[in-house]
Amino acid sequence: MISPIRYSLRPIGFVRSRLTARKEAPKQGSEGAPEAWLDIDPAFAEALDGIAAGQEMVLVTWLHQGCRDVLRVHPRDDAKNPLKGVFATRSPDRPNPIGLHRVRVLEIADCVRLRVESLEALDGTPVIDIKPALPGSIDA
Amino acid sequence: MISPIRYSLRPIGFVRSRLTARKEAPKQGSEGAPEAWLDIDPAFAEALDGIAAGQEMVLVTWLHQGCRDVLRVHPRDDAKNPLKGVFATRSPDRPNPIGLHRVRVLEIADCVRLRVESLEALDGTPVIDIKPALPGSIDA
Repeated sequence: MISPIRYSLRPIGFVRSRLTARKEAPKQGSEGAPEAWLDIDPAFAEALDGIAAGQEMVLVTWLHQGCRDVLRVHPRDDAKNPLKGVFATRSPDRPNPIGLHRVRVLEIADCVRLRVESLEALDGTPVIDIKPALPGSIDA
Repeated sequence: MISPIRYSLRPIGFVRSRLTARKEAPKQGSEGAPEAWLDIDPAFAEALDGIAAGQEMVLVTWLHQGCRDVLRVHPRDDAKNPLKGVFATRSPDRPNPIGLHRVRVLEIADCVRLRVESLEALDGTPVIDIKPALPGSIDA
């Protein structure tokens, strides 16, 4: 029953941030996260065409420090919170450690470097996709 | 400069839907998409613990029919729309064809089958992650 299928992801870029340790990272961007740069691979420069400062984007990352064999966690890493299935939490520990981050673009430099507001991802986190947030709505 | 790194994703389940062709799928769930079932692999049953009917979740899928070498598209597959970088659109054609879908859980059956509202993903689409939508906010 367990599917043998695997898909291969390639990073399209990397996060550059002053956050370097999981312990110091806020749980969500809205909890005091710093600005960060997204260094996108120039091979994908064309794919950024149409993104401008001021836009709200959804950043998809690969949470490379997540543990992939964990199925339950104490939410917010707090042992006082009862164990919960990882799909009912935003824990970075999950079978496919995908991170979602709603960010505002502040600046674009050198065509492929995006400065974004309030990002809780660690320095060196691989970026795997960028999408526009859907306008005027609560968004996926 | 192009990173040789690759990450391996495994499906945690599959979408079961009456939508079978890309042409008939709405562009977004809010554009008249039907209900669908998510059949999650029983190996991940524990990871669903804490998800209940009525909750808003973000479903992350692998858009297996997307073209991965496309960097610009006509938004909404409409040739009248000027070409735009795929990261400035929600096109399924993109380097890593990740789909994001905000859905409401309607029912959970057999511990690992979730019925969800308004999902534009095609039948057979691999599910790679499920997360709670962040409460009361515009969410990633």
